[in-house]
Amino acid sequence: MNELRKDYLTDRWVIISSDRSKRPHDFRTEKKEESPKTCYFCPGNEHMTPPEISRVEQDSKWIIRVIPNKYPAVKPNGTPGIKTDNHFYTFASAYGRHEIVIETAEHGKELEDLPADHIKKVLDIIISRISEHMKDPEIDYVSVFKNKGRDAGASIVHSHTQIIAYNNIPSVIKHELESSYRHYVIEKRCAFCDIIAREKNSTRGVLNTRHTVAFTPYASRFPFEIWLFPTRHVAGIGELTDEELHGFADSLKTILTRLKDIGNTPYNILFHTIIDKSSNFHFHVEILPRLTVWAGFELETGTIINPVPPEDAAKFYRGEIQ
Amino acid sequence: MNELRKDYLTDRWVIISSDRSKRPHDFRTEKKEESPKTCYFCPGNEHMTPPEISRVEQDSKWIIRVIPNKYPAVKPNGTPGIKTDNHFYTFASAYGRHEIVIETAEHGKELEDLPADHIKKVLDIIISRISEHMKDPEIDYVSVFKNKGRDAGASIVHSHTQIIAYNNIPSVIKHELESSYRHYVIEKRCAFCDIIAREKNSTRGVLNTRHTVAFTPYASRFPFEIWLFPTRHVAGIGELTDEELHGFADSLKTILTRLKDIGNTPYNILFHTIIDKSSNFHFHVEILPRLTVWAGFELETGTIINPVPPEDAAKFYRGEIQ
Repeated sequence: MNELRKDYLTDRWVIISSDRSKRPHDFRTEKKEESPKTCYFCPGNEHMTPPEISRVEQDSKWIIRVIPNKYPAVKPNGTPGIKTDNHFYTFASAYGRHEIVIETAEHGKELEDLPADHIKKVLDIIISRISEHMKDPEIDYVSVFKNKGRDAGASIVHSHTQIIAYNNIPSVIKHELESSYRHYVIEKRCAFCDIIAREKNSTRGVLNTRHTVAFTPYASRFPFEIWLFPTRHVAGIGELTDEELHGFADSLKTILTRLKDIGNTPYNILFHTIIDKSSNFHFHVEILPRLTVWAGFELETGTIINPVPPEDAAKFYRGEIQ
Repeated sequence: MNELRKDYLTDRWVIISSDRSKRPHDFRTEKKEESPKTCYFCPGNEHMTPPEISRVEQDSKWIIRVIPNKYPAVKPNGTPGIKTDNHFYTFASAYGRHEIVIETAEHGKELEDLPADHIKKVLDIIISRISEHMKDPEIDYVSVFKNKGRDAGASIVHSHTQIIAYNNIPSVIKHELESSYRHYVIEKRCAFCDIIAREKNSTRGVLNTRHTVAFTPYASRFPFEIWLFPTRHVAGIGELTDEELHGFADSLKTILTRLKDIGNTPYNILFHTIIDKSSNFHFHVEILPRLTVWAGFELETGTIINPVPPEDAAKFYRGEIQ
């Protein structure tokens, strides 16, 4: 049974994932690189994954597959309601569903190597999975994210995105919601719409297309961190039209392709998307290259040292420096 | 000039360290391993570091040295007061002092390889540096931490601890202070004293000596995470007696030596220590082995997946499993 636990005092949550449990010496062994022959996510090895949830086909072959994660961080059983014992111990079952979107059948192709049409189909299937998970009243949030490269936490190289639907509103999202609400109360406008308006023409502006705006955020946590927004105010990705989604896929491809120039950069992509339209939230995607490691200072203080000013990162994305 | 910046909306701070600035292609090059010949921290290379701040000698040779960091994240100039422009942009100079404690003259020796007496001397010098930094009214907090191994953020292998005194109360410490204060208001007791009393005899208890208690925390963020407390209630490490400090050094050595059994484990050590005795804070040290990487889920949600239950980690430290 996996358990969701809160820190004794602060609003810091962990999922204790006993199913993935490792004994001390397990950490000593290095993982081998997969080849298409041994890769769980490659065509021909479909029987090695748990039963498929959905797929997109082209010429009667699958090009995108959604499957349950074989080692899920959360599971659809146990008691999802959060309980407290002696007020230091706050816990629940780590309830939910953990899925993998295999973005392509081709081993070695990265998200940015796929045509924008194909990336748009990946977004479509993510939207339909979020909508499906949110039907379960025990699910509070659906986290959608991508890990590329070992330093970004990927354990399988074949290009994929993960979906974790679970029984908690994440603290990061809660803080964003609370502070954007405070802005709304005073300004009667979406905080993110105001930020976009300021940043798109600033020294941090990168892309300004018909349907998207991208910029390197003022307080970037990572070198070359970049955020991508739809220009139209929507709380969740599911509200975007087909044309807007295509534009979004296209901008995502442009950014990731540029990032490739640094080398085989490990990165995370985070989808900040919610369902509640009344929230003043603004859907966006954060792309976090993982070229630095959070060390003792970051973990002790929460203050993050970033050696690349976002103004320089923006110049890189705009092609002004190499 | 390094700058301290706050996220547009949330209480998330970064230090934009332009002095350490790298161009995109700089990230492509792998760092070479240092040898005693080229190591800045080895005897004979003292001229390669900025001017020494203090040292401990034995048989007229130094055994511990404190030096300024050559690439400081913070500097004692600029305008330390925090300003806000348009309320999205909150900033100050990243003001302060960034120092290195070279823990030993011997290249290749780790903290745990040193005699407890020597570790106690390292603690003594940390105490005197904290006390010195806190005399500057612009300094709000002195962060003391150690990074061991590349995966824990260390860029130099020679064993050392870092001190960053800077112009902000870190959000992590602020949350600990706030929640321990709330506990005090209701219970009239230190929250940490109550946690220690519960945990020392729990399935997570590891050490229970005359002057220290160690346990693996209930909501451990990392596999084999362990916290070390002095038994006596003190807000800061500087309040401990010589005998207590010796006991603390001894327990630290015991824990780190046990951790070595997993292999050459990268880890961070975080000193949670403050000066204000009226705060109900309780000094402790958190030891975070870095055997897992925070991936997209952790960065998006703030919820952390840990594959090793702290109850199993405690068994490992108690020598019940290998």
